[in-house]
Amino acid sequence: MRKIAIIGVGNVGSTTAHTLIERNLVDELVLFDQHKKIVFAEINDLIDGQIGRSSQTKLIEPSLAELTDCDIIIFSAGDISLLQGTSDRFIELNFTKKVAKEWGQKIKESGFKGILVNITNPCDVITQYLQQITGLPKNQVFGTGTTLDTSRMRHAVSQKLNVHPSSIEGYVLGEHGESQFVAWSSVRIAGIPIEESFSQTELDELEVAARKGGWITFSGKGYTSFGIANAASTIVEAILNDSQLIAPVSNYNDTNQAYVGHPAQISSSGIVKDFDLSLNTLEKQKWQKTIETIHFMYNSI
Amino acid sequence: MRKIAIIGVGNVGSTTAHTLIERNLVDELVLFDQHKKIVFAEINDLIDGQIGRSSQTKLIEPSLAELTDCDIIIFSAGDISLLQGTSDRFIELNFTKKVAKEWGQKIKESGFKGILVNITNPCDVITQYLQQITGLPKNQVFGTGTTLDTSRMRHAVSQKLNVHPSSIEGYVLGEHGESQFVAWSSVRIAGIPIEESFSQTELDELEVAARKGGWITFSGKGYTSFGIANAASTIVEAILNDSQLIAPVSNYNDTNQAYVGHPAQISSSGIVKDFDLSLNTLEKQKWQKTIETIHFMYNSI
Amino acid sequence: MRKIAIIGVGNVGSTTAHTLIERNLVDELVLFDQHKKIVFAEINDLIDGQIGRSSQTKLIEPSLAELTDCDIIIFSAGDISLLQGTSDRFIELNFTKKVAKEWGQKIKESGFKGILVNITNPCDVITQYLQQITGLPKNQVFGTGTTLDTSRMRHAVSQKLNVHPSSIEGYVLGEHGESQFVAWSSVRIAGIPIEESFSQTELDELEVAARKGGWITFSGKGYTSFGIANAASTIVEAILNDSQLIAPVSNYNDTNQAYVGHPAQISSSGIVKDFDLSLNTLEKQKWQKTIETIHFMYNSI
Amino acid sequence: MRKIAIIGVGNVGSTTAHTLIERNLVDELVLFDQHKKIVFAEINDLIDGQIGRSSQTKLIEPSLAELTDCDIIIFSAGDISLLQGTSDRFIELNFTKKVAKEWGQKIKESGFKGILVNITNPCDVITQYLQQITGLPKNQVFGTGTTLDTSRMRHAVSQKLNVHPSSIEGYVLGEHGESQFVAWSSVRIAGIPIEESFSQTELDELEVAARKGGWITFSGKGYTSFGIANAASTIVEAILNDSQLIAPVSNYNDTNQAYVGHPAQISSSGIVKDFDLSLNTLEKQKWQKTIETIHFMYNSI
Repeated sequence: MRKIAIIGVGNVGSTTAHTLIERNLVDELVLFDQHKKIVFAEINDLIDGQIGRSSQTKLIEPSLAELTDCDIIIFSAGDISLLQGTSDRFIELNFTKKVAKEWGQKIKESGFKGILVNITNPCDVITQYLQQITGLPKNQVFGTGTTLDTSRMRHAVSQKLNVHPSSIEGYVLGEHGESQFVAWSSVRIAGIPIEESFSQTELDELEVAARKGGWITFSGKGYTSFGIANAASTIVEAILNDSQLIAPVSNYNDTNQAYVGHPAQISSSGIVKDFDLSLNTLEKQKWQKTIETIHFMYNSI
Repeated sequence: MRKIAIIGVGNVGSTTAHTLIERNLVDELVLFDQHKKIVFAEINDLIDGQIGRSSQTKLIEPSLAELTDCDIIIFSAGDISLLQGTSDRFIELNFTKKVAKEWGQKIKESGFKGILVNITNPCDVITQYLQQITGLPKNQVFGTGTTLDTSRMRHAVSQKLNVHPSSIEGYVLGEHGESQFVAWSSVRIAGIPIEESFSQTELDELEVAARKGGWITFSGKGYTSFGIANAASTIVEAILNDSQLIAPVSNYNDTNQAYVGHPAQISSSGIVKDFDLSLNTLEKQKWQKTIETIHFMYNSI
Repeated sequence: MRKIAIIGVGNVGSTTAHTLIERNLVDELVLFDQHKKIVFAEINDLIDGQIGRSSQTKLIEPSLAELTDCDIIIFSAGDISLLQGTSDRFIELNFTKKVAKEWGQKIKESGFKGILVNITNPCDVITQYLQQITGLPKNQVFGTGTTLDTSRMRHAVSQKLNVHPSSIEGYVLGEHGESQFVAWSSVRIAGIPIEESFSQTELDELEVAARKGGWITFSGKGYTSFGIANAASTIVEAILNDSQLIAPVSNYNDTNQAYVGHPAQISSSGIVKDFDLSLNTLEKQKWQKTIETIHFMYNSI
Repeated sequence: MRKIAIIGVGNVGSTTAHTLIERNLVDELVLFDQHKKIVFAEINDLIDGQIGRSSQTKLIEPSLAELTDCDIIIFSAGDISLLQGTSDRFIELNFTKKVAKEWGQKIKESGFKGILVNITNPCDVITQYLQQITGLPKNQVFGTGTTLDTSRMRHAVSQKLNVHPSSIEGYVLGEHGESQFVAWSSVRIAGIPIEESFSQTELDELEVAARKGGWITFSGKGYTSFGIANAASTIVEAILNDSQLIAPVSNYNDTNQAYVGHPAQISSSGIVKDFDLSLNTLEKQKWQKTIETIHFMYNSI
């Protein structure tokens, strides 16, 4: 029985729950939220949403004891909808660090031994904070990181070139925030470096388009949901299926002593290893800058 | 290429879009809404939500010319979130009939020849109104009707008996509204009539539980989305796949000259035939009453 | 991690493995066969068959120690292709009882505590024999029984009426063999008894058509694979998902002290309960006859 | 309605049919084979295999008139099981060219305007021959080519490194036969060139392992089915979904005037464009050699 808890059932948490169910990735799901009415509303609606399907995810009434034997806890608490989209992640941090502390302690007390996947922003800093508070091994705690940003880059390149996104390789690296950057030297279409087809100016425009995508979503509907739910579900599938997928999650980098979005291999016991891309000079500078940003933010907690 | 338009991209429309994509039921999707910013937000988020998947639904920029060659139009316009859940469907009708008229004419002008599936409430009345305005053949226009209510009945029975919902047969009939009723004489678990196991009082309690489910969802999150999106997606799959599924959609009943929720067989060219259940005396009375309610409401337009 | 072993990798076993993988129902799969070359061929081909998919089923090298912690063992050993289709299940029994004994002991020695699903024919008798030899609780051992025969009945009715098979309810009961019968009194389309639309003669013809289907498959390709793999996969999904699905598996009936195909509710810990249909007089006679056939056959072991 | 014909229903054709159905990629399927009994056996078994599923693929009785409006024809005729696995593709060619000629003319006469996907070996030569005989535009005719071989390379690398196959990029190029080669210079794991981690000797061993995989399957079970069905289904999905996927299919290369396995972008109207990888010196030699082999073989027809 694949058992998952989602802590925080706003637009992100509930869409993630729905996506996990639609993809048949979970047998038992426990939802937690400070608003009990919302939890029971989502439980009821999610069950209605399964009638007629062969697979049935059990929606379990929330109780801290249920955390103990979960395979995965997804942390999506915090008032994401109000704060996401501002460029000031510090405002968000002041709010979410309290929620993370509260829940980190509850998770620790529950004796949970599985994988903790963080979505709450600022993603890298909150992930590190959750690892510290729960005391879980570093490889068992990671965040969605630049997985969503990498999707947005592939989305932008895919639209520009009219190519299937799965035929586009490469990563967005760094903070899930303003200091992130596309590692264009890693981007290939059908194995051919994108730098052979586009000038630096054109690549800069593509990077702007990728970022703008998130903004179009946020400013138009007030939050983002399907993109992040897809990123989280992809990570959940990799964990439960022990599939050794490599994705740019926010995972602990020893060299830089920080949680930061960069490719890592995901198994049922968490992160197996992370990968250092060969960056060009410009990218190396951006990498240093984003690491500094994360350190600075983390030290402010 | 399976092409679908969704008119009205609130919580219901956008969750339906997401569900259709997750189930890989559509190749091209066109979203319409009076709020253009929302349309572009959802388009962007729905594309982000597909990165990493093998199947890719194209999100097409809205233009009335795109309606012409759609296989299906899903009508989910109207300020559903504000009005749904009140017991007064007339308030809702005053608003939604205007939107239905406006869009019914646009659909007619587009030369659309496919299947029109209505979700907007009051479902039965708006479905009939849309058929009249579009001038499409009656079998090509139908509503989700009591498909969702039937799911809620199966949900309630499933929870009560701890049995898979697919092992529970039977229907909720009538108006998708207050005058609907469970045709308990049609409900069977593993082929055994539920009336053999429960008293009428217990069945009444189950019926209350089924209705209360919708209310728990609505009052907790302010709208319902996953349940109705599942119902709509099931219907869409039956149409596109020409699968001859029988479901209690709101379809035209000749005898009673009304659109009303009762079992009908769904094909790629619309409703093939509808079915008259053998109701008991009490159920026949409820059926007459719900027909009268629908007539009364329709005549008020 | 959902772990399944398949014992016997002929056409049935390998198609079942493929179907489980395609439906994403298993994380780890162990194949056993007396022909080691076939096992390694199927392992290799099944891995090739997953490249490009997000979910990855691990194919584990066969070793008896792997049985211990399996959630499910599927028993499909025996030279099915040579014998299936003859009306003489005794010939088959003489062969398969030896294989069942050999593997039943191995399963017992492994300390396996999960669910044993038998496909090998004669299904009811071999299932009972496996239960006896493994010493597993009766509710943890069952066979595919008349699940496939019920599918064939729904297939025949579906073709006759051009209706989606999921809109056809009812069961084939009894031995998975010659003495089985359609319980027509349980068959409904859209809740309407089929007996209202067809004469007994027509129903008899439909029953012949349903049986003939299996024969068309067997005589044309020398074995049957997709139908039985679908039945087995449906059962596996119900177990792993703890979904409480009701299906006509060959499960132990206390009253008749026999394993026989009749509806039972399936959970992650096996059979929860079985159901007695209200049969008509003719059907009761057929039920007695099929029970006698199974007893007679079992006593011959 | 997505309509596909499969010509040749041996192990490859029938497993492809089953895979297309399991992945819900087709609404109408027409099977052709010189052995009518096999066709009706597979039709019957494939319908049995769908009972209980929501989506239903119609199995249509074979008639040449059905070819006319198919979206895709998959050509898998020829006595593949007997000949595949020998190193002498000429023996195979002598047989399959006759079948290709016969069916190519029938396809032409049908007025078919869709996409023709060839699996029959020798794949590149038969694909070119089918294009010539049908007179279809070159971009509407292509073969599975080195898609399967690329899967086998990723399978081998995945096993060696314990990494998800989707995290391994790169291609096998050339003839789907002995003269094919892995373009190691194109292979990356998490964006890092494999040549940085392995010596040429180790890469040679991996290439041998990849080839040996096919041989283990063929020699163990007498044919290969799941791997090739997966490759064909991936291509079918890309066509029907117009997804612009890039895959190393056997498509026409203008420069070399030959059908040969190399990356090309797939849409609903066929091949959109093909890609020239930057090969190293050794790989360029292998490319020339494989082109010559294909020319030589084609000229022998």
